[in-house]
Amino acid sequence: MTETQNNHDSMEILTQAARKASLQLPALSTAQKNAVLLACAQTLRQQANRVLEANEADQLVAKAMLDQGKITQSTFKRLVITPEKLEQMAVNLESVAALEDPVGQIQLARRLDEGLDLYRISTPIGVLLIIFESRPEVVVQISALAIKSGNAVILKGGSEVAQSNRVLAELIRQTVAGFDYMPQECVQLVQSREEVSAIIKMREDIDLIIPRGGAGLIRSILENTQIPVLAHADGVCHVYLDEAAEPDMARRVTIDSKTQYAAVCNAMETLLVHEKFPLDALLQILSELQQADVELRVCERTRKRLGTEHSLSLKDATAQDWSTEYTDLILSIKTVTNLQQAMEHINRHGSKHTDSIVTSNPQAAEIFLNGVDAANVFWNASTRFSDGFRYGFGAEVGISTTKTHARGPVGLEGLTIYKYKLIGKGQIVGDYGPKGRSFLHQPIPAEEQKPL
Amino acid sequence: MTETQNNHDSMEILTQAARKASLQLPALSTAQKNAVLLACAQTLRQQANRVLEANEADQLVAKAMLDQGKITQSTFKRLVITPEKLEQMAVNLESVAALEDPVGQIQLARRLDEGLDLYRISTPIGVLLIIFESRPEVVVQISALAIKSGNAVILKGGSEVAQSNRVLAELIRQTVAGFDYMPQECVQLVQSREEVSAIIKMREDIDLIIPRGGAGLIRSILENTQIPVLAHADGVCHVYLDEAAEPDMARRVTIDSKTQYAAVCNAMETLLVHEKFPLDALLQILSELQQADVELRVCERTRKRLGTEHSLSLKDATAQDWSTEYTDLILSIKTVTNLQQAMEHINRHGSKHTDSIVTSNPQAAEIFLNGVDAANVFWNASTRFSDGFRYGFGAEVGISTTKTHARGPVGLEGLTIYKYKLIGKGQIVGDYGPKGRSFLHQPIPAEEQKPL
Repeated sequence: MTETQNNHDSMEILTQAARKASLQLPALSTAQKNAVLLACAQTLRQQANRVLEANEADQLVAKAMLDQGKITQSTFKRLVITPEKLEQMAVNLESVAALEDPVGQIQLARRLDEGLDLYRISTPIGVLLIIFESRPEVVVQISALAIKSGNAVILKGGSEVAQSNRVLAELIRQTVAGFDYMPQECVQLVQSREEVSAIIKMREDIDLIIPRGGAGLIRSILENTQIPVLAHADGVCHVYLDEAAEPDMARRVTIDSKTQYAAVCNAMETLLVHEKFPLDALLQILSELQQADVELRVCERTRKRLGTEHSLSLKDATAQDWSTEYTDLILSIKTVTNLQQAMEHINRHGSKHTDSIVTSNPQAAEIFLNGVDAANVFWNASTRFSDGFRYGFGAEVGISTTKTHARGPVGLEGLTIYKYKLIGKGQIVGDYGPKGRSFLHQPIPAEEQKPL
Repeated sequence: MTETQNNHDSMEILTQAARKASLQLPALSTAQKNAVLLACAQTLRQQANRVLEANEADQLVAKAMLDQGKITQSTFKRLVITPEKLEQMAVNLESVAALEDPVGQIQLARRLDEGLDLYRISTPIGVLLIIFESRPEVVVQISALAIKSGNAVILKGGSEVAQSNRVLAELIRQTVAGFDYMPQECVQLVQSREEVSAIIKMREDIDLIIPRGGAGLIRSILENTQIPVLAHADGVCHVYLDEAAEPDMARRVTIDSKTQYAAVCNAMETLLVHEKFPLDALLQILSELQQADVELRVCERTRKRLGTEHSLSLKDATAQDWSTEYTDLILSIKTVTNLQQAMEHINRHGSKHTDSIVTSNPQAAEIFLNGVDAANVFWNASTRFSDGFRYGFGAEVGISTTKTHARGPVGLEGLTIYKYKLIGKGQIVGDYGPKGRSFLHQPIPAEEQKPL
């Protein structure tokens, strides 16, 4: 048996175990799921040393990689687990327990006929594969969301934190095993790329893949699977300063969108400026950006407009700049003739993530919000607001730029789908029709709803 | 330039035109869209002869194929357009106009802070590729649903009705062209498999594929695209007669589920019978099925239980039978020891489409409805009820057995997604945090909701 075949077979066993576990989870009550989450929090606190020791082992290896320049200082920082971070993981488990159960919600209650009631009820999706990088706390966060939403989950974390991930996953599995109503295999961890390559081919047993990480990782998943994927490959976000933008507001929104945290997907990458936006205000904004160490890459029209009477250091933007996610202190700037041109630029070069218009003209705002094809469209607000916690979802699985299932910041609800339950008294279709009974199609009064 | 390259290039032009059209559609008002639908209905009535003539040409070719045994009588019947069917298409356009607009619905309205309001608003998905077979009225039905939901659509119909499809699509495009706010390319038709093969690779410009037709077609799409697909490949539906099933109800539901219309996906293919379900009632049911020309394929336990004192003609079910969609007057029958075994059988062999339990025991019903992983789970009702029209959706795009986006019968709502609109007064993220402002996360009172 070849190694590949071997890997395939063991992954088949693993995914089938996940599928089997997933069939038991929809029947769990909210209280049952919350008890597991709270117990996991306790386990993390009681076994803190095991986690910290494993993380120290990861740090040793990572430190060597850092010294060799193989990983960056910020990657190193992300993989370190401090006692405070560990406590935060426990608190996170408790907050997920406090969230409303996304499963069992009645989305539709319709009386098809007397004694024939149809319900649409939210259910778990089934089996999730979630792939992430560097930050070990994601093991805990995703496990918590999976348990709360009644999904079985297969986790694949970054190899830089293999030991930490292993111990965290073990502690969760150990806790889960203490509850006889929980299937042990509802949380599983894999560690290698080869394992992921095999799993993403298993369409029968994986219902949804959520890759979180760099664009390279996400594209490689998208190109190699036929399983639905929820992700954003890029975050090429725009701020458009309209002719009617209030200059100081334009300044504040632009600076925040670019510099408040440049390394994330909802930071602005391209600033679009209406040709009639006041020149002095624009100079002021660019000057502040430069003071904040932002490299400025401008189109020809912008360079021309800015003239030479300034102390800005400007680079020329190339065609590639318009589609590039820098996740760094770099900004491309383009002058546009009108709103229409701004929207065309965004719809062509953007990544359907987050785009904001600054204007005091409500008509322009309306056209922009309806005409820009993005998950998040903002009027007079920083792009940095597009985030599950800021939106008040309490938890975030990731941000999606796909156009089906869930879009934008995805919370617990994005981990659910629904099923139709029809409750009858032996009705048959043959009794309905032009010469038979007809359908009522009425809402079921709240006090009569009994979806089981 | 090779033929393949040529085909690829022309399909790229076509899909890009669809994408461009799709960007104009979200801004249309309900009245604007309905006006187009009503005008299409008028065009069909006024140009009825063109449609009927084109269909006669298709019939000529099809008749020859029928005589050669290349297509079945029922396929032939499906492709014929009568004046009554044509009028029905016009009426269908009018009913879609009468449906509620699925776009622009406020799904969430949350005040993040004073003057910072977040809305989740339903929007069109974008560009749909819909593939179907034989029935030319689908061109009209799908175009209507696409226009109403604000999606651009590329249609691929069956080659047996190429002329009818072409004329129907032309009439719709001609009508659309009469409205200056409508992008002409919102409805496009392609005719060859090669064109479909090229289009399903164009991930940038196609957002969702809905294949309607045989399992072969659907599998071939699923295996060759990375674009989200909404479909059901099979309809292996079950009826489970519990120990506590009322015999006459069991009989009625079983007969209707199998024989009311055997050629469709929501007909029953396997009957599961609890070993304590009364033998005389089972014999009665099987005898009625046989009288209705249903071929009976039984498991060993069932054959044993039925004994020899009957006049039934029984075949042996093979392992393959349990996973086969007959769409014909054939039924496999299996005896099970208990509810758990019935559920295991369904979750293993079923196609997650529609499964029904007949029982007078509410506990058994509850376990079944929550434990069977299917889009539609029924208690004491025929599987044949799982249908968008019977559910009261007014229109059906298809039935989905995928676990994301939309599941079960899919109506207009399944052709939408949502976007987040954030409306502020220049707020920036840097102002929020432990030392700054905190979020309110309150519902926006109905009278203050202004999502643009």
